[in-house]
Amino acid sequence: MSSFMRGPLLRTQGLLRTQLNNTCQSRAHSVAVLGAPFSKGQKRRGVEHGPKAIRDAGLIERLSNLDYPLHDFGDLSFQYLEKDEPYMHVPFPRTVGRANKLLSGAVSNAVGAGHTTIMLGGDHSLAIGSVEGHARQCPDLCLIWVDAHADINTPLTSPSGNLHGQSVAFMLKELQNKMPELPGFSWMKPFLSAKDLVYIGLRDVDPGEYDILKDLGVQYFTMRDIDRLGIQRVMEVTFDHLLKQRPIHLSFDIDAMDPSLAPATGTPVNGGLTYREGIWITEEIHNTGLLSVMDLVEVNPALGVSREAVASTASMAVDVIASSLGQTREGGPITQESQTLKDDTEQLRL
Amino acid sequence: MSSFMRGPLLRTQGLLRTQLNNTCQSRAHSVAVLGAPFSKGQKRRGVEHGPKAIRDAGLIERLSNLDYPLHDFGDLSFQYLEKDEPYMHVPFPRTVGRANKLLSGAVSNAVGAGHTTIMLGGDHSLAIGSVEGHARQCPDLCLIWVDAHADINTPLTSPSGNLHGQSVAFMLKELQNKMPELPGFSWMKPFLSAKDLVYIGLRDVDPGEYDILKDLGVQYFTMRDIDRLGIQRVMEVTFDHLLKQRPIHLSFDIDAMDPSLAPATGTPVNGGLTYREGIWITEEIHNTGLLSVMDLVEVNPALGVSREAVASTASMAVDVIASSLGQTREGGPITQESQTLKDDTEQLRL
Amino acid sequence: MSSFMRGPLLRTQGLLRTQLNNTCQSRAHSVAVLGAPFSKGQKRRGVEHGPKAIRDAGLIERLSNLDYPLHDFGDLSFQYLEKDEPYMHVPFPRTVGRANKLLSGAVSNAVGAGHTTIMLGGDHSLAIGSVEGHARQCPDLCLIWVDAHADINTPLTSPSGNLHGQSVAFMLKELQNKMPELPGFSWMKPFLSAKDLVYIGLRDVDPGEYDILKDLGVQYFTMRDIDRLGIQRVMEVTFDHLLKQRPIHLSFDIDAMDPSLAPATGTPVNGGLTYREGIWITEEIHNTGLLSVMDLVEVNPALGVSREAVASTASMAVDVIASSLGQTREGGPITQESQTLKDDTEQLRL
Repeated sequence: MSSFMRGPLLRTQGLLRTQLNNTCQSRAHSVAVLGAPFSKGQKRRGVEHGPKAIRDAGLIERLSNLDYPLHDFGDLSFQYLEKDEPYMHVPFPRTVGRANKLLSGAVSNAVGAGHTTIMLGGDHSLAIGSVEGHARQCPDLCLIWVDAHADINTPLTSPSGNLHGQSVAFMLKELQNKMPELPGFSWMKPFLSAKDLVYIGLRDVDPGEYDILKDLGVQYFTMRDIDRLGIQRVMEVTFDHLLKQRPIHLSFDIDAMDPSLAPATGTPVNGGLTYREGIWITEEIHNTGLLSVMDLVEVNPALGVSREAVASTASMAVDVIASSLGQTREGGPITQESQTLKDDTEQLRL
Repeated sequence: MSSFMRGPLLRTQGLLRTQLNNTCQSRAHSVAVLGAPFSKGQKRRGVEHGPKAIRDAGLIERLSNLDYPLHDFGDLSFQYLEKDEPYMHVPFPRTVGRANKLLSGAVSNAVGAGHTTIMLGGDHSLAIGSVEGHARQCPDLCLIWVDAHADINTPLTSPSGNLHGQSVAFMLKELQNKMPELPGFSWMKPFLSAKDLVYIGLRDVDPGEYDILKDLGVQYFTMRDIDRLGIQRVMEVTFDHLLKQRPIHLSFDIDAMDPSLAPATGTPVNGGLTYREGIWITEEIHNTGLLSVMDLVEVNPALGVSREAVASTASMAVDVIASSLGQTREGGPITQESQTLKDDTEQLRL
Repeated sequence: MSSFMRGPLLRTQGLLRTQLNNTCQSRAHSVAVLGAPFSKGQKRRGVEHGPKAIRDAGLIERLSNLDYPLHDFGDLSFQYLEKDEPYMHVPFPRTVGRANKLLSGAVSNAVGAGHTTIMLGGDHSLAIGSVEGHARQCPDLCLIWVDAHADINTPLTSPSGNLHGQSVAFMLKELQNKMPELPGFSWMKPFLSAKDLVYIGLRDVDPGEYDILKDLGVQYFTMRDIDRLGIQRVMEVTFDHLLKQRPIHLSFDIDAMDPSLAPATGTPVNGGLTYREGIWITEEIHNTGLLSVMDLVEVNPALGVSREAVASTASMAVDVIASSLGQTREGGPITQESQTLKDDTEQLRL
């Protein structure tokens, strides 16, 4: 962990602050895409094919139509360790830990190179490395977690033991003394304050998670809250809570969307976000100009009941990514880029 | 009809009132499930298999996860009379009347034993017996009718003659002089005032029904009203109208839900409640602490175009029942019960 | 183009104004249905079968249940010209121009005969003739365009060249000097002011269109605007903008609806109108009493992935048409008509 982690101190150091600004707080001038085909944060096969499914649904072409230079860094190669006994009832701790260490470095590098970085999972345990790598470059980041689940179990409270349901617990400083020392995670330590986190879309919260959320005073919006307040108000309160002008890490689990829109995922829960609510969230985050890293996780092409189910899930993923990066529903003026695009489109359509 | 039916008088009789309170007006300490496999209130086959479909979708397991002792009383046995000529154009009057008399007794017993009672239909003609039996124990009940249809035709106004479209007309004191004396219904007389009834979800109202609703000044919310006011405001006005602190009978026709969510039903109508509106209604009713009896009717597994269509309809039914009984989207704290649940879940998932 | 086109002048001519009122500004006393099986405004086959699909979904029976005399004028016969070279990259200009000239006359005649006229497309290039013919009778009409697309490209800005994406550009006086003289369109000239147009439902706007909309100050509501304001407020602002007491032309592209509701169409875009939003729009337009002509276009039965997909798209079309003409979700009182209907229904159901 680099000295960048000493966030509060840095805020008084003008020079370094300015450097951070360059990397972390300005509107994207380039976009990096990074695939993370990994599935050992849970027990179902298939989610390691998420990056391919999302690419096959046209991600790169879609992002090429936007205004930024685009860098596709391909997929990371993860090792699955042969000797990796469960710790308590937590499976694959060393494999998950090592994968996240690798991912952390890759995300840190991409952010450090000035790219707004899109991480394609894989399961949601990958957020540990993604947010940690992001925080190395941007210690004052805030985290918006869009998900049906809170993923804040500790190994002690988790009903399943799966690490994709514990990612946030690894990040939070406030939970440090409740976390056993899992093999595979000695490379990192907690780096996020509970006040710098907002959840959107929760609707399946375990009792242990409920207690943690309440104890730490985490700001979260369940689907009932969204019903009550409306998604516009939810986003306003989210930004008010996080305060403006900080780099945003958006960790978007596709299961936040309603299962009718994103059926090909491991733990779907009815009553999720509508298409338009999902797009509203990402449009609003784009409009802040502060999106720095986005995870898009839990697209599992092995779990769709049909080819259409997989295609619609992957297409939903492409839409929320493109919207996070500036694709709008109201369109935009003719620019040099759109002029070029127009010419391409003509060829395509004629 | 017992003396309990003299509701208004009872309200001045302190002692009896207190006894009623014990049965009717306190938060549920136990839940009874009662199946009513009956279909002669309409002409399509299959709705008599509704209770089995809802149980197969996991009702009992789901309710076991909540905090109440659960009593599953199985299914009632209904007789289909061989000699049951139509009365006017109303088919099966004696069969429907007898079935409802049986059901009325069963519901009355369950409520009298202190259970919050869940009646699984079967067609919506069963509400006659269910509400009547409930009213025997709790004469000051109010009725919330969630349905695409008003089910308030009389035999004289009904286009089809089907009794599942006339249930409410049998209950209302104000309609007594408009109701012919149907064979099979001499065991009961009207017991409900129009002011004690609220409809939610209407979108297919017959002209005769429209006139009755207007004449009696019934409080009702069509889908257009829900579009206009929002479901939150609809529930607020519903409770304001019914006044608080009275036992609630919730009669929930699954066709209130949009056909995309509940296709396996006899008379689907487009433009229905969203999943989240359905859950909002039931959450709010649970939150009053006054739910006393709930009907869940018109799940017809013979009418789904696919196995998935039937499964999603039955699953929708389970979700609204569980939500009516306290299942929440925000979760809840660790309790002895949830601790036990957690352990079970672990075994289940590992 | 008749002298009726000199709209503003007419408004000071009391006598003629009164005559116009009779035709254009009074609540419908009769309804005309006019099929337009035409597809050369775009390049995909099948949309010429739209009128048949909508009729097969029960349009005439449904409209017969309403209170107006109904005149079904069948389908127009369009000629597809053999020699019709593209103009620039615009395909079939003479074929599209001639078809619209024919349609214009038919719509003008129907409106002149006092009918509220329903035009069943066909592709959306047909709006050129439909609105032009309407304007001949009712020069002070206003145009409400419900669509995922703005259809306001000129031949110079259009990415595809397809005329179904340029219909509005042919109508607007403000664009006259930006429109090349296409072969096939000499019979008409622009007749509509940009201030007399409102869009609802946009979510796929080309850059050239964006610039035109902004340059002309057109009032439009994208899906993001609908998310922001709600459909009720959108309709209020629409009517405020258009001022009241003018004949309304409603040009409804079925692709305004969400693709889950209307999949069988040529250019579906995710995140569209819900069923209830679509019905709200048409109910509100009906409630003005000013609907004069309605187009229902772009139902393409060749593009549904299944028979159900086509059926649901056509059924959606029937529902928005019936709602535009007064079918309500709250029902209505017993009338002579509904009494007759009731008797029919009884026979049907028994």
